[in-house]
Amino acid sequence: MVHRGGDNLSNRTLRMRIDGGGALLEPWLDELYKIGAEPGGGAYRPLYGTAWAEAGDCVERWMKKAGLETRRDAVGNLWGRLDGTEKGKVIVTGSHIDTVRHGGRLDGALGIVAGLTATEALMKARGKPKRSLDVVAICEEEGSRFPTNFWGSRAIVGSIGKDEADTIVDPNGVTIAQAMRERGLDPAKIGSAARDDIDAFVELHIEQGAVLETTRQPLAVVSAIAGGVHLEIVVTGRADHAGTTPMDLRHDALVGASVMIQAIESITRAIGAPAVATVGRIRAEPDQINVVPGRVVFTVDLRHSDPGARRALEERTRSLCRTIAAERGLELEVRVLQERPPVPMHAEVRAVLTRAAQECGVRATELVSGAGHDAQILAARCKVGMLFVPSVGGRSHCPEEHTDPGHLELGARVLVRTLELLAY
Amino acid sequence: MVHRGGDNLSNRTLRMRIDGGGALLEPWLDELYKIGAEPGGGAYRPLYGTAWAEAGDCVERWMKKAGLETRRDAVGNLWGRLDGTEKGKVIVTGSHIDTVRHGGRLDGALGIVAGLTATEALMKARGKPKRSLDVVAICEEEGSRFPTNFWGSRAIVGSIGKDEADTIVDPNGVTIAQAMRERGLDPAKIGSAARDDIDAFVELHIEQGAVLETTRQPLAVVSAIAGGVHLEIVVTGRADHAGTTPMDLRHDALVGASVMIQAIESITRAIGAPAVATVGRIRAEPDQINVVPGRVVFTVDLRHSDPGARRALEERTRSLCRTIAAERGLELEVRVLQERPPVPMHAEVRAVLTRAAQECGVRATELVSGAGHDAQILAARCKVGMLFVPSVGGRSHCPEEHTDPGHLELGARVLVRTLELLAY
Repeated sequence: MVHRGGDNLSNRTLRMRIDGGGALLEPWLDELYKIGAEPGGGAYRPLYGTAWAEAGDCVERWMKKAGLETRRDAVGNLWGRLDGTEKGKVIVTGSHIDTVRHGGRLDGALGIVAGLTATEALMKARGKPKRSLDVVAICEEEGSRFPTNFWGSRAIVGSIGKDEADTIVDPNGVTIAQAMRERGLDPAKIGSAARDDIDAFVELHIEQGAVLETTRQPLAVVSAIAGGVHLEIVVTGRADHAGTTPMDLRHDALVGASVMIQAIESITRAIGAPAVATVGRIRAEPDQINVVPGRVVFTVDLRHSDPGARRALEERTRSLCRTIAAERGLELEVRVLQERPPVPMHAEVRAVLTRAAQECGVRATELVSGAGHDAQILAARCKVGMLFVPSVGGRSHCPEEHTDPGHLELGARVLVRTLELLAY
Repeated sequence: MVHRGGDNLSNRTLRMRIDGGGALLEPWLDELYKIGAEPGGGAYRPLYGTAWAEAGDCVERWMKKAGLETRRDAVGNLWGRLDGTEKGKVIVTGSHIDTVRHGGRLDGALGIVAGLTATEALMKARGKPKRSLDVVAICEEEGSRFPTNFWGSRAIVGSIGKDEADTIVDPNGVTIAQAMRERGLDPAKIGSAARDDIDAFVELHIEQGAVLETTRQPLAVVSAIAGGVHLEIVVTGRADHAGTTPMDLRHDALVGASVMIQAIESITRAIGAPAVATVGRIRAEPDQINVVPGRVVFTVDLRHSDPGARRALEERTRSLCRTIAAERGLELEVRVLQERPPVPMHAEVRAVLTRAAQECGVRATELVSGAGHDAQILAARCKVGMLFVPSVGGRSHCPEEHTDPGHLELGARVLVRTLELLAY
């Protein structure tokens, strides 16, 4: 049961108070964006790097200044606590502090900064909450340094594998454990980061897609985080001399793969949203300008919010590729690299988010998140919910990442009201 | 005018004599194939390497034993001379001694070994020729060590650029000049390798394609070496999040490139042989499993024996790619990496080859060579002609490279008769 309170606030006073807190939103986002700024544009704050540490210190200063009690857990998640007057499980808001290479100003940063300004605004306006309220800067979500991700949220739910810290290495051969020690963190204590005292986790995030912008909506309550599967498809034909092998005697693995890639796009379009299919990587062998490719390896990322529809998309992809390979005398091998089930957001949190939006004057749409988020991991241990604000042009993970200030402000206001409904 | 003689020989005596010389064909091919043998199968004899030097020494021993007078020119081409009784330009036969990585037993080696056995057989049966006869082991043709090729034949026609030896480096940063000095060759003397005393060059080679096998023909006289163009096509779309970007909002450079690759195959098939088009290399960026490719670069190798038809194929390729890019909101850039005109074989040499084949009981077909050969370079300075024997399964540049012993023998017999017609 999610606690609901704060019904005594009028919209007018609510709006005033939020405007006060929100005044810090843009300057703080600007300040964070400077940390890890890259020559080619954007910022890069990989887990346990220098920029990552600097950003954490910066947020901790803001938390302390706001009157929150801070602590770092074993993996370096940063928590800022506003104690509640009653016992009970904690309400948490926040996001991740790491970024991809050339990352934008809002991905992750928005959830932390908005969570902190919202908490500060509530504290000023209403004092201590009933339920304790935590603002969290999660140490890692993007997977942009080590070939793993959700490091912070997986620590919180206690699902990090025994050997992960010692076996997973970055491109320079540094293990996660070595990188932790460089930041004064003890890998042996990872287990201590696990929490079972969280009631609900809510996160404000940019959409990172263009659905809201295209449909001219200012806000969405996330209904689910789409599941997906990563396939690796290996097409084997025969490498031949590009000059001496007539077209009708070839078994060209790349032309075969090209037909498959086009067919995957066609069926996914035919199925319609929210089905998406992406071939992101491709490699041809022997990779010579004058040799017919004998082998091609490509990846397919398939997503759909409905598990049945996702499986159907995968089955049609496999069957189409089989048919194309057979028609062209090619061999086909399909490997599953990763399979993630879809994660629904908690009905109670969704209802609170929808109500909060309504009280801020917005009828929020519901949206399936195509991107992965910490909420899908934390869902194993607590109620989760997410709010999306529009991304201009749908751009994200790039310096062009942008959201209209009015939309950022609206998102923060709905977050304030949500936290008020949950914690006061 | 190609000199024609030897008409006084009966087919029966000719056949007997050739069988005698041919007996060495297979053992010598076996011996050469051992030099540079690789762990993964096949042989690798890159220019100026250890295996290359060993192979040259081996062929020089055979030449001397056969009674030829040997010499190395400035770039390391190995010449074995059988002096003629009359003054006049020289008749040359042979092939290249270098190989690709994991190269087969016949590519290059066959032309040298068959040239030597043929010359030996003629010498034994008919003594000194009227015209001097040279057997040559050309130092390099494949381009498998340095990013250049036809080094040997370009030296013979005097077309090696002034700075090439000092500026072209192998993958270890060694210049051609350094590699030459390691073999006791003086790069300053490259110009001295040029010859203007060659009347005709004939070469026996494997087809490296499957046309002869497919059409059940034992021998071909090459009519021309196909010209070709290498294009680099850059498709620019927009990198987007694979999970959050609906299919209809994408500008996927890889799907666009896939449609182009398929279209290139279709039009080339529609035009028909001898048109061939090959996309051998492809690279997608940012090359992430969960990111829609924003940029794809691929190469196209287009060949046709008729220059007009080749240009038409290129124009249709460019126009199709433009249309596909425009339809999908992608940008397109097409760069010409290399352009080679087709080289016809000399009519007189073709006629002699056809007659020689006929006298050996075979009605030789005519074939356009899709692969490049030294003859296309030497054509600038002398009359050139080539004979092809079938490649089993069309395989070449691999350990599976194979030709039926009967076809090798037939090729050598026709070469003997050709050299007899040209030099005696």
